[in-house]
Amino acid sequence: MRFVNEIGLLKGVPRQTVLSGLGRRENSAEHSWHIALMALALSEHAPPGTDIGRVIAMLLVHDIVEIDAGDLFVYADEAQQASQRQAEQAAADRIFALLPPDQAAGLRGLWDEFEERRTQEARFARGIDRLQPMLENLKVGGGTWHEHHVTADQVLAKVALIEDGSPGLGRYARSLIAEAVRGGLLDPPEAPEQP
Amino acid sequence: MRFVNEIGLLKGVPRQTVLSGLGRRENSAEHSWHIALMALALSEHAPPGTDIGRVIAMLLVHDIVEIDAGDLFVYADEAQQASQRQAEQAAADRIFALLPPDQAAGLRGLWDEFEERRTQEARFARGIDRLQPMLENLKVGGGTWHEHHVTADQVLAKVALIEDGSPGLGRYARSLIAEAVRGGLLDPPEAPEQP
Repeated sequence: MRFVNEIGLLKGVPRQTVLSGLGRRENSAEHSWHIALMALALSEHAPPGTDIGRVIAMLLVHDIVEIDAGDLFVYADEAQQASQRQAEQAAADRIFALLPPDQAAGLRGLWDEFEERRTQEARFARGIDRLQPMLENLKVGGGTWHEHHVTADQVLAKVALIEDGSPGLGRYARSLIAEAVRGGLLDPPEAPEQP
Repeated sequence: MRFVNEIGLLKGVPRQTVLSGLGRRENSAEHSWHIALMALALSEHAPPGTDIGRVIAMLLVHDIVEIDAGDLFVYADEAQQASQRQAEQAAADRIFALLPPDQAAGLRGLWDEFEERRTQEARFARGIDRLQPMLENLKVGGGTWHEHHVTADQVLAKVALIEDGSPGLGRYARSLIAEAVRGGLLDPPEAPEQP
């Protein structure tokens, strides 16, 4: 129950994403709910044999380290990302230890699996986690893309993660980016030789 | 994707529960995340053979009708509850129809199962959904119990639902109520002949 009470704090961790119609930033708890239900609704786009229950469990758990470490913007630089990874490991050590050892091992295993991105379940989960902020940005006419001067190149680089989890959702994400460029929500790729 | 975008609106549906440390009401999206992760963490308290993946899927889906119908306080009177049930059925008809028919049937099935409370998965899910607001009220020194002059009798009547899903969590909920009465957070049961 210490764990159950502690995780409630995730409702107070703001993300970059601004929510359409609400005029406030999304928090990590409601983000986690949204992507967990997306995984269920979009399960037909997962590779055959994917255990969707495991995908959902990973998505429910994956952000709780942000209670200590906060949310880092997906386009942060490499140094920030390295220090974030360290903070998240320390947070995982503290928060999962609030559970009895058996359950701690089970939930920590899900968190590690998501981070390591080796299983098809983890890769599909990561893809969904990347896709949702793109959908939110489109709803608010650009959102964090405008705010942080993100270009289509940068977003396309993130699409590789979506494609890795689900080729179908990867194609869909590419079509969203093309639509955002056409609509002026995102600057076009800078030069043709860029990846 | 229409469904995926639509369900995001649940982040704007306020519940009665006030969140400790945040000074605002909880919304139904973050509530749904909290109880889904509680079901995972507390799965050892479910009756043997309970499919926790199905419990979690139900909890992720169960509140989306509140996008149209809003959240009704758990101690509302019978007339309000009847009109709420009608509004929720209409909302379910509209929102699940945003999905392709196959998926609509699958997710609507989960919602119906939760509402009908016939399977052990639905009963465990309902119990968790009842337990979480009690924990939140304890964290804020009474919360909605004070605000709506709820007595221990009324809370104890709701514990039957928790007990029905999990005898262990039911006993735990009873101990929480006794603690709340001792701490003056909840008025004691009014008279021994009351239910």
